[in-house]
Amino acid sequence: MPRYKLTIEYDGTPFVGWQRQANGQSVQQALEAALQRFASESAVITGAGRTDAGVHATGQVGHVDLSYNWRCDEIRDAMNFHLRPHPVSVVRVEAVSDDFQARFSAIRRHYVYRILNRRAPGALQRNCVWHIARALNADAMHEAAQQLLGHHDFSTFRASECQANSPMRTLERLDVVRTGDIIEIHASARSFLHHQVRSITGSLEHVGSGKWRVEDLVAALEAKDRRRCGTVAPPTGLCFTQVDYPDD
Amino acid sequence: MPRYKLTIEYDGTPFVGWQRQANGQSVQQALEAALQRFASESAVITGAGRTDAGVHATGQVGHVDLSYNWRCDEIRDAMNFHLRPHPVSVVRVEAVSDDFQARFSAIRRHYVYRILNRRAPGALQRNCVWHIARALNADAMHEAAQQLLGHHDFSTFRASECQANSPMRTLERLDVVRTGDIIEIHASARSFLHHQVRSITGSLEHVGSGKWRVEDLVAALEAKDRRRCGTVAPPTGLCFTQVDYPDD
Repeated sequence: MPRYKLTIEYDGTPFVGWQRQANGQSVQQALEAALQRFASESAVITGAGRTDAGVHATGQVGHVDLSYNWRCDEIRDAMNFHLRPHPVSVVRVEAVSDDFQARFSAIRRHYVYRILNRRAPGALQRNCVWHIARALNADAMHEAAQQLLGHHDFSTFRASECQANSPMRTLERLDVVRTGDIIEIHASARSFLHHQVRSITGSLEHVGSGKWRVEDLVAALEAKDRRRCGTVAPPTGLCFTQVDYPDD
Repeated sequence: MPRYKLTIEYDGTPFVGWQRQANGQSVQQALEAALQRFASESAVITGAGRTDAGVHATGQVGHVDLSYNWRCDEIRDAMNFHLRPHPVSVVRVEAVSDDFQARFSAIRRHYVYRILNRRAPGALQRNCVWHIARALNADAMHEAAQQLLGHHDFSTFRASECQANSPMRTLERLDVVRTGDIIEIHASARSFLHHQVRSITGSLEHVGSGKWRVEDLVAALEAKDRRRCGTVAPPTGLCFTQVDYPDD
């Protein structure tokens, strides 16, 4: 069966998350239903990352096996037609070899977390930011963030329901950049623990507001203790932006 | 009575436009209702520009006279509290002199029109772009746009219901810039005619798609005839971003 790689964009607001669940509509379900309507087959779309309810994506990647050799642009256009009115869009479809797996072939994942840092709440894009009214020092956040780079036990920044076998992860990039009222946190790693980016963001917020010093963040990491994590940042600000593969 | 200048952001999607109308909720009305609830007075907020239904703003400016001397940050925070859950936000409040008028004191207005130019529709920010699936040549659009700069009779690019006394306007900036799949059209002038940016954008789209050459755009301008205008671009892509005043 031919295998296809899909690059997917979605507004996570109305969904229970990426993964199929009993309690509501998932992004995966919306995509599979669109595929069913156009190709008349029940195929499973496997995603590179399981984003939580309310988390967005501009570069989620999925793969699917179909029984017929469709043209890539046919798949893209037909799926987008049947996806309406869901805020989900198939940006690109590529034919890939049988050993490509969206989840296991991935060598790097990229997320961006957006904070709107001003007194007034957001009117445009309010579902795509974490609004923080008190002034944050983004430079201090960036400086502290550099302490988390590299290979560590990230137990402090891991959801209790995380299913990964190991709490060890290698954080390759954690940049905090302010542009006007927006603070963006860019995080890159081969893979992340459940709630890792949101847990780190919530802890960096403590640094930005002056509640924590750099040493407090390092102590929290070294404690390897979930109870030492800052507030977990809300899902709205998070966006899964890109997945890298060896052949890219 | 003390006069205040308000800088206002809104998502135009759920509104009939800036201006109070009988057929639905306007941005002006939402703001005045919030003011009423906090200051217990019926004050009129005059805007710098009357945006249409579906048009957004990150830098609309309004002025209002209140009978009491409130602190600027009190007005901002109280209005934002009472504006919920409307997607309208008062970003900044400043005390101004009695001769400041949001509309008549303005010396320059800035708009950005956003086109999403790719096959797949937008999932995030779908209410903030005009989705055009066929490839547009943004460089050709920019080059043609330069022909519209300066002082002209813009009758071709003016809504039939436009109430301005004269069709003469001076276009100071009209830049077309592509960043990935997004094409932004930046337009600046002392003032604009009704539907002028959307009419120009729709005509530039003709240039970008190859339907018109630069000479066709110039001929349309010189015809001073509404029937020579390209398709009027939809309101969703338009955002009123900034108003300049002499004292800025």
